[in-house]
Amino acid sequence: MKIAIVSGKAEGPTKLNSFDNALLEAGIGDVNLIKVSSMLEKDTELELLPELKPGTMVNCVLATLSSNKKGDIISASVAIAIGDSLGCVVENSKINESPENVKKEAEEMVRYMMSKRGEKIHDLIIEEVNHVVEDFGTVVASVVYLNENIIINK
Amino acid sequence: MKIAIVSGKAEGPTKLNSFDNALLEAGIGDVNLIKVSSMLEKDTELELLPELKPGTMVNCVLATLSSNKKGDIISASVAIAIGDSLGCVVENSKINESPENVKKEAEEMVRYMMSKRGEKIHDLIIEEVNHVVEDFGTVVASVVYLNENIIINK
Amino acid sequence: MKIAIVSGKAEGPTKLNSFDNALLEAGIGDVNLIKVSSMLEKDTELELLPELKPGTMVNCVLATLSSNKKGDIISASVAIAIGDSLGCVVENSKINESPENVKKEAEEMVRYMMSKRGEKIHDLIIEEVNHVVEDFGTVVASVVYLNENIIINK
Repeated sequence: MKIAIVSGKAEGPTKLNSFDNALLEAGIGDVNLIKVSSMLEKDTELELLPELKPGTMVNCVLATLSSNKKGDIISASVAIAIGDSLGCVVENSKINESPENVKKEAEEMVRYMMSKRGEKIHDLIIEEVNHVVEDFGTVVASVVYLNENIIINK
Repeated sequence: MKIAIVSGKAEGPTKLNSFDNALLEAGIGDVNLIKVSSMLEKDTELELLPELKPGTMVNCVLATLSSNKKGDIISASVAIAIGDSLGCVVENSKINESPENVKKEAEEMVRYMMSKRGEKIHDLIIEEVNHVVEDFGTVVASVVYLNENIIINK
Repeated sequence: MKIAIVSGKAEGPTKLNSFDNALLEAGIGDVNLIKVSSMLEKDTELELLPELKPGTMVNCVLATLSSNKKGDIISASVAIAIGDSLGCVVENSKINESPENVKKEAEEMVRYMMSKRGEKIHDLIIEEVNHVVEDFGTVVASVVYLNENIIINK
């Protein structure tokens, strides 16, 4: 199993369009996202996001938040913990909370999930994005599940 | 990639049942719907909805709204724009808003998505459904992603 | 088509973690859940949940509810009706309602779905779970769609 971790933030004229713009910024705006919850196979490898075929179906874990209140601080975070026999992913998104806390909460939740499964953590990765809303803003952080069928080979 | 565009509206004794009845009216009541967001491959072809195998897994974009307040006008709309290298789909649903506006909003959002991607629009299709609630009403508008495995061949 | 019916309940330090703990108790905590709505093929067979490969993608119907208000009674239920040419699944979750009612509502809704389709019910199965919240509690009831790829063969 191969995954990529991405994030993005953007403004837009509507909630849908600001969300779409944030997905574009994250590099996953041209595919069909299917939301899944949130486990990783053993021996999961982390890669840079390759170029995805427009219009293909892509499984992902997605943390996202939108607001149209000027000045709001919006944060989205994914925490990934990889162990010997599996891995766990946590999504966390918050409004007007310290970005440090959003990150810390995500980390604590994924550590708890791994300890519940008796898994030792080999790798812990946290991706976070924050944004101060101007008009209509959205943040996204995502773990994208990669496979041969969705990637453009060059 | 082949798609079909459908819509339906219905009443029912509960929210779940009115939703199910609206799906039946739209022709997609007997399959498992997996919601995806909302891009089309290049050379996407529009077809009439074929007969689907009961119980198969079907990817779709779904706009839906339910209300149990007698007299509410509920509207659901999908707007599809197809360009040279990809296509975009927008879902929009509103309560007690002019059906013309719901349609117009969906069109504006999908035009914006295409312009963000530098795509010229060759085809623009908008499907819309409106319903005045009596008891418990639901509207659905959907873009259904078709493939060999989900269709009954005759 | 083969399905398994499972349920679980658990407490946890956060909503996400109590949900994850309830999934673990139900036996589906180590996979990626993709939510689908809610039809069964003809000749669907009911099996005990086999051991699932950690990190695989698993389609399911999921009824779930969480609360952090001490003393709340939370209930989740799935009702499965199997007929000659297809089957229907209903999910129902409620807070502080009689568990008998939650079950009865689910049964009535699935009976209505089958009668709308002109299907006679051969088998009717209802799975229900209830929990009195202490700290942060979650209940889950689920119909899991099984296939060769997600099962550990021994």
